[in-house]
Amino acid sequence: MAEYDLVVLGGTIATASDTFQADIGVRDGRIVALAERLDGGAETIDATGRLVLPGGIEGHCHIEQESSSGIMSADDYYTGSVSAAFGGNSCFVPFAAQHKGMGVTETLDLYDSRAAPKSVIDYSYHLIISDPSEAVLAELPKAFARGVTSFKVFMTYDLMRLGDGQLLDILSVAKAHGALTMVHAENNDIIKWTSKRLLEGGYTAPRYHAISHPALAEEEAINRVISLAKFVDAPLFVVHVSTPEGAELVRRARQAGARIFAETCPQYLFLTREDLDRPGMEGAKFMCSPPVRDAATQDALWRHVEAGTFASVSSDHAPYRFDETGKLMGGPNAAFKQIANGMPGIAMRLPLLFSEGVVKGRISLNQFVALSSTNAAKTFGLSPKKGTIAIGADADIAIWDPNETRTVSLADQHDAMDYTPFEGMRVTGWPRTVLSRGRPVVLEGELKAAAGSGAFVARGTVDLS
Amino acid sequence: MAEYDLVVLGGTIATASDTFQADIGVRDGRIVALAERLDGGAETIDATGRLVLPGGIEGHCHIEQESSSGIMSADDYYTGSVSAAFGGNSCFVPFAAQHKGMGVTETLDLYDSRAAPKSVIDYSYHLIISDPSEAVLAELPKAFARGVTSFKVFMTYDLMRLGDGQLLDILSVAKAHGALTMVHAENNDIIKWTSKRLLEGGYTAPRYHAISHPALAEEEAINRVISLAKFVDAPLFVVHVSTPEGAELVRRARQAGARIFAETCPQYLFLTREDLDRPGMEGAKFMCSPPVRDAATQDALWRHVEAGTFASVSSDHAPYRFDETGKLMGGPNAAFKQIANGMPGIAMRLPLLFSEGVVKGRISLNQFVALSSTNAAKTFGLSPKKGTIAIGADADIAIWDPNETRTVSLADQHDAMDYTPFEGMRVTGWPRTVLSRGRPVVLEGELKAAAGSGAFVARGTVDLS
Amino acid sequence: MAEYDLVVLGGTIATASDTFQADIGVRDGRIVALAERLDGGAETIDATGRLVLPGGIEGHCHIEQESSSGIMSADDYYTGSVSAAFGGNSCFVPFAAQHKGMGVTETLDLYDSRAAPKSVIDYSYHLIISDPSEAVLAELPKAFARGVTSFKVFMTYDLMRLGDGQLLDILSVAKAHGALTMVHAENNDIIKWTSKRLLEGGYTAPRYHAISHPALAEEEAINRVISLAKFVDAPLFVVHVSTPEGAELVRRARQAGARIFAETCPQYLFLTREDLDRPGMEGAKFMCSPPVRDAATQDALWRHVEAGTFASVSSDHAPYRFDETGKLMGGPNAAFKQIANGMPGIAMRLPLLFSEGVVKGRISLNQFVALSSTNAAKTFGLSPKKGTIAIGADADIAIWDPNETRTVSLADQHDAMDYTPFEGMRVTGWPRTVLSRGRPVVLEGELKAAAGSGAFVARGTVDLS
Amino acid sequence: MAEYDLVVLGGTIATASDTFQADIGVRDGRIVALAERLDGGAETIDATGRLVLPGGIEGHCHIEQESSSGIMSADDYYTGSVSAAFGGNSCFVPFAAQHKGMGVTETLDLYDSRAAPKSVIDYSYHLIISDPSEAVLAELPKAFARGVTSFKVFMTYDLMRLGDGQLLDILSVAKAHGALTMVHAENNDIIKWTSKRLLEGGYTAPRYHAISHPALAEEEAINRVISLAKFVDAPLFVVHVSTPEGAELVRRARQAGARIFAETCPQYLFLTREDLDRPGMEGAKFMCSPPVRDAATQDALWRHVEAGTFASVSSDHAPYRFDETGKLMGGPNAAFKQIANGMPGIAMRLPLLFSEGVVKGRISLNQFVALSSTNAAKTFGLSPKKGTIAIGADADIAIWDPNETRTVSLADQHDAMDYTPFEGMRVTGWPRTVLSRGRPVVLEGELKAAAGSGAFVARGTVDLS
Ligand SMILES: [Zn+2]
Ligand SMILES: [Zn+2]
Ligand SMILES: [Zn+2]
Ligand SMILES: [Zn+2]
Ligand SMILES: [Zn+2]
Ligand SMILES: [Zn+2]
Ligand SMILES: [Zn+2]
Ligand SMILES: [Zn+2]
Repeated sequence: MAEYDLVVLGGTIATASDTFQADIGVRDGRIVALAERLDGGAETIDATGRLVLPGGIEGHCHIEQESSSGIMSADDYYTGSVSAAFGGNSCFVPFAAQHKGMGVTETLDLYDSRAAPKSVIDYSYHLIISDPSEAVLAELPKAFARGVTSFKVFMTYDLMRLGDGQLLDILSVAKAHGALTMVHAENNDIIKWTSKRLLEGGYTAPRYHAISHPALAEEEAINRVISLAKFVDAPLFVVHVSTPEGAELVRRARQAGARIFAETCPQYLFLTREDLDRPGMEGAKFMCSPPVRDAATQDALWRHVEAGTFASVSSDHAPYRFDETGKLMGGPNAAFKQIANGMPGIAMRLPLLFSEGVVKGRISLNQFVALSSTNAAKTFGLSPKKGTIAIGADADIAIWDPNETRTVSLADQHDAMDYTPFEGMRVTGWPRTVLSRGRPVVLEGELKAAAGSGAFVARGTVDLS
Repeated sequence: MAEYDLVVLGGTIATASDTFQADIGVRDGRIVALAERLDGGAETIDATGRLVLPGGIEGHCHIEQESSSGIMSADDYYTGSVSAAFGGNSCFVPFAAQHKGMGVTETLDLYDSRAAPKSVIDYSYHLIISDPSEAVLAELPKAFARGVTSFKVFMTYDLMRLGDGQLLDILSVAKAHGALTMVHAENNDIIKWTSKRLLEGGYTAPRYHAISHPALAEEEAINRVISLAKFVDAPLFVVHVSTPEGAELVRRARQAGARIFAETCPQYLFLTREDLDRPGMEGAKFMCSPPVRDAATQDALWRHVEAGTFASVSSDHAPYRFDETGKLMGGPNAAFKQIANGMPGIAMRLPLLFSEGVVKGRISLNQFVALSSTNAAKTFGLSPKKGTIAIGADADIAIWDPNETRTVSLADQHDAMDYTPFEGMRVTGWPRTVLSRGRPVVLEGELKAAAGSGAFVARGTVDLS
Repeated sequence: MAEYDLVVLGGTIATASDTFQADIGVRDGRIVALAERLDGGAETIDATGRLVLPGGIEGHCHIEQESSSGIMSADDYYTGSVSAAFGGNSCFVPFAAQHKGMGVTETLDLYDSRAAPKSVIDYSYHLIISDPSEAVLAELPKAFARGVTSFKVFMTYDLMRLGDGQLLDILSVAKAHGALTMVHAENNDIIKWTSKRLLEGGYTAPRYHAISHPALAEEEAINRVISLAKFVDAPLFVVHVSTPEGAELVRRARQAGARIFAETCPQYLFLTREDLDRPGMEGAKFMCSPPVRDAATQDALWRHVEAGTFASVSSDHAPYRFDETGKLMGGPNAAFKQIANGMPGIAMRLPLLFSEGVVKGRISLNQFVALSSTNAAKTFGLSPKKGTIAIGADADIAIWDPNETRTVSLADQHDAMDYTPFEGMRVTGWPRTVLSRGRPVVLEGELKAAAGSGAFVARGTVDLS
Repeated sequence: MAEYDLVVLGGTIATASDTFQADIGVRDGRIVALAERLDGGAETIDATGRLVLPGGIEGHCHIEQESSSGIMSADDYYTGSVSAAFGGNSCFVPFAAQHKGMGVTETLDLYDSRAAPKSVIDYSYHLIISDPSEAVLAELPKAFARGVTSFKVFMTYDLMRLGDGQLLDILSVAKAHGALTMVHAENNDIIKWTSKRLLEGGYTAPRYHAISHPALAEEEAINRVISLAKFVDAPLFVVHVSTPEGAELVRRARQAGARIFAETCPQYLFLTREDLDRPGMEGAKFMCSPPVRDAATQDALWRHVEAGTFASVSSDHAPYRFDETGKLMGGPNAAFKQIANGMPGIAMRLPLLFSEGVVKGRISLNQFVALSSTNAAKTFGLSPKKGTIAIGADADIAIWDPNETRTVSLADQHDAMDYTPFEGMRVTGWPRTVLSRGRPVVLEGELKAAAGSGAFVARGTVDLS
């Protein structure tokens, strides 16, 4: 009998701190040996000349989720997980959205029914809370008991937003249970007040979406929610930071001893307002909230990526097709308020970050691992099972060809979308193979895993040291 | 016929920039001559050895005003103006409070009926807006037309507070008419959330008032309202800043080009939490919002006073007697939420600032004039009639004995109160005489003016250069 | 006999805090009356429709001064003072430069012999100290006794620069006598190290001068000298600040309670590197130290001007003709190190600041007065005799036509130069008449004063509140 | 034949990013296998219940080094390396000090002759340069060729200090060769100027040493040297940062994209001015430069440790005995200037950091590994051979009992000293065993290695991503 179910041979392994050459021995889905030379694999994968990295963990994506206005994302747990896997991810944590009137268990059961039969990689959920009634707050411990240890709350969107008092409620309940609160931080009133005036003035094109979500709206909200988190001494994770001022607030709070974490997203590093300004409805493809900004913002955000302000770079994959099921649901000339927010990117997050980060010398390979996998694992309670290559960890592994050069195309996304906002960009470095608990999900660019082969991962309390 | 109705002889005059010896010639209530030697006064006042300053302008005081919970301030326009005059002021700008359901003209008419028959010094109002309905917004130009060119809004107090969108409405209307928006900035939800928990826990003593109004609540709100003002490029005046972080936000916004102004108050410079912590209900005398803080905060606020962060030091005179008409309205053991907020100080603002500021060498005499009078005149549209000693200006003059030393006592307040929070402090420098448009209101410590001798001052648009 | 030697009629007077209409009565060179209407002037000047301002005080100019390399400035005390007067100044404070080996009294006597017979406006000196030997330090009280209460020291230029220990010596001696230390702050080693490499590489054109004086060199030196001043708690005045980072250091130090003051100059507000980059030796006309920077720097410095970071805007008039007596002394192809640093501007400082500051709405008329005159008077111990229009002050008055529009030309400079760096700029607002102690120096654009009619002003200890 | 020379069994391994249970297989001094279970070790060490960490790397210590004033440190390479090993270190990088007149090769040969026969752990040197003459600069490539890829320079001490131009020389040469410049940053003139006045005034006790080295002197120098490094875009490592302002400067520079790194030391985290203030000469034991500060400084520095500002916590072990060979060389009543600076601590650095950092919950175990070993390996070019537990790395391992509690005593230091400044402190967590390339140096508290068994490590260019 073979000592290992699988041996990955000859690759260059990188963790968040180290880079070394070793073979990896996998048994029962876990890494059980690392050595200069391992024999005895029932199966082997030759990784010579390749980088062997912890599989990516996608911490921010919208999969088979209804928006508050009722529109369903284009990707379900099958296409979403397949796209994630082709993009170098072996695990993801989409949202389970509690809409008004829904209970906690009801919500989680619903998402289990969506994910379990379809996902090809492991998954958990962040529980969106839009209605923190007494009843819902009382039911939250059931979420913790199931291993759902992070919440997401919104400071904007009329049907989702919580007031400051509700944020304090959530933050303090989360803290009491070792859970993490994630927040979409934009000032709702600034957005509404501005949108009203823009629409009244006939400014309806996609580009006015960005004008109605000014940088000030994000900065104000980030400052406010950090104040609330500091007041109750609770950990906080600010999603999709799009402004250097917002990043700076996060950094300063952490320097002052608060446990404040944040991510940014590829759209803020790789796209700008010029994309949104494309003629006609074309700009709708580049609409997201907060909106893409400008080149100076990109530079400043990169500097925060380099300096360690952000725990992760996440995709905020929010797939709405450029047709009447998605972006154009409000018609071919819909005003920006009738156009679904969000864009796809779950397959491009890591190739873009690798190419522009590692290959261009902005970040080290170890930083790439931290930003793409390890920090998410620690922040979201997936550690030590996920997020690294170490003895005892799940064999969630991405094998990259660091030299492969590609032009971004829709075909490479493997999602249910009809466009990619990154179309035509050139990247160097590509994930060829992704293993989930030792099983090949993607092997040299071929899908190998069956729908439903991924499993729910019960998460622990957060490690926010 | 005498050339001057009055000549003030031999004093040392100070303005916000200059100090010089001169006689002052007054005719028809205005300063018409300044000279080394003036003859020909029908009346004379000998100011030899005295400081001759622009009369103080009190920009923040609550006179004959019902609070949102219905409690009437102890001082009416007679006692309030008399106390102000004894404290070196020749003009004040109390609030005209629009409570829910009241119209703008209705509100101003009401306050005219209160002030006109009683005030011994000139006055105007800041119009408090608690209900910016369409109808009220439409009526605002009538306020401007009457010369009421400043609003006050609240971010806290359930019956007064405006949401961020309403703040944007007010800021943009005010800006369009050259008017100024003043704001009480504290985060309402932090205060309510904390108060609820404190009261549930049985923490009802006055000292818990301060705990329910943490520094973070002020800092957050100041940051937010500055963001809103910057967004619509409107001028803003932040009242009663009690934290150095709040002051720093004001300073930084102004450095960045925004027209953001602020005041602090004697309670934050001269009192601390130890006063509030006095046993029993005694602490209620020192309750105000935002609350008094600590010694380190005092030091830091003084540094902001010295460095020019604050336009004014105002009293926030909010007189509630220490009896069942005021502080003890909720009973002798009322929880802090049932105790009226605010303390008197209109007569002590200037002696305290002079003694601790000028005499102790922290600020120059010219800075004292700016902080006590000139800046308020400019900020609130009273300039050039008020706020300085210059040709053409109203003869609003305070004559100080810079050497007189006093121990603060209730008797010297001349208000309708039964306590002063500054009781027993020692001050050097005292206003002996106050002229309003050349008429003696207080002459060598004696009241000379009749009720109703003060007049309403129509104000212009604000000078915020 | 007339009551007044002179009455200035009907003008709009502005001080650093006030603006008002009044006549001014002058007797024995001093302002003795301000009134709505003054009769009885032996002479009168009609200022109807004009601005009547305190005469400008030029606090930074090089007049009849040998540079450390021995080159004499083009302007002597006659042409220099005439040019200053045409530019709206009634007083100036050039440098008296102690070069190595010279004594204090010797230096001051030398400059008295230069100024007394020639100056048409009042003057004092800042004493440059390049050699703070024991003997020189011991002689300094004689400077104070003569009314020279400010020093200038250099952190760069091999023949002038002092080490940090010497700076501590000067700062502490100055402080002990109520005197002020002024400093040219650039890091000498950065400049030398870079210049050497540039010259070795053949980069000799004027534009490389700016590259050898990077912004970092100024920022470092300002930070260092502020540290030294804070260490001995001495007041400090940083001359010709050319970087917003430098200005910010000054502002932060003052906010922290240190008495740190600064000026900027027209070249940093109105010229840029593009001027220096002009072809051939043309760029030499725009060489000064620190060098002119770029448009973003200009904007940021203006914001500091507006927000009150700078006490003054001074000219740093350093006139070297564009011929072999000045800029081209090293020959027509001299390397930048052989080209004299500095440019003229004493006549343009105020028209430029008025036009771009007041007329364009960046600063108020009162700020203009403060920046051009009042603050210099206070900072340099000329107050209360100079720097304002008030009873008892010297009748040093500039009468401006606020509407006159001019194109800057050499002819309007009235100096000994053969170029002006501001040639061709359009300005609105022009000083028509300048009075010095009541005497017309320039009257409606005509020179009226004789050489030597200006007088040395003994200065007091500095007012740095 | 056994597969492994040594297997470490059953321990909990931690790297800078991961914590996991595994056995470690060592062959030929390197880690060749990590597995859940390893058999086949010729030798085994049972680490059950223990932490198995990368051996500490001490990056700042003075061993067998003459100070510039000629005093030899008490520890030679034998006692120094033994003490280091007992303190959990498997590698150290003392200084090779070039004093004036010495060549580069001469200096390194001298230190080789000291270290090679004595050290029990691996070692390299930072080359101190006190005399960067043309000849010395020309010889530097020989140091790089030998694998000495870091310099140390001083901004203070008359016999050691370099001017800013010399610093630019060193920084740019180092950068060109991928080497790192380390700097002792204090303003020399402030120290000298102050010391002179203190000594003249008779203030000679050890406590005045601290007064002559104010925080401002460090802050100024750090700002200056960072400016220099930024100017030539060279990496820089600031040693023994003792002020939060200094740490903040480092952090801000890195945020702005500069490659600026820093360390702090146990003395600044665990000792204060109160120690220095002990009566008589006792305070001399606590003298070091920069000096120990106060409790508020400690707190702020800890926050920087937590937030990742510092790459390392290093000992700055500078052992001078409390007798006439060391501290008292100048006699029993020597003035502070005659007392040797520095204190021992090479054996206590890690136990103190573990106990107060990890056990008290301020930092994670992974941060401890980074601060004690991994970051030093990366920063100083020892990576990937040293500084982690990974396949291919040297088997430099420290095995800790996380629960062992000790009271700090001289006996546990194993150095040549007669005191420890940390005497009597209580620590939890103790290094029991240290392996160097698989060889036991200390085994369960017993010294096992012979003098000279450590080896020189040629270092590579620095990894400063
Ligand atoms: Zn979102
Ligand atoms: Zn999202
Ligand atoms: Zn209020
Ligand atoms: Zn109030
Ligand atoms: Zn200069
Ligand atoms: Zn100059
Ligand atoms: Zn050192
Ligand atoms: Zn050292």
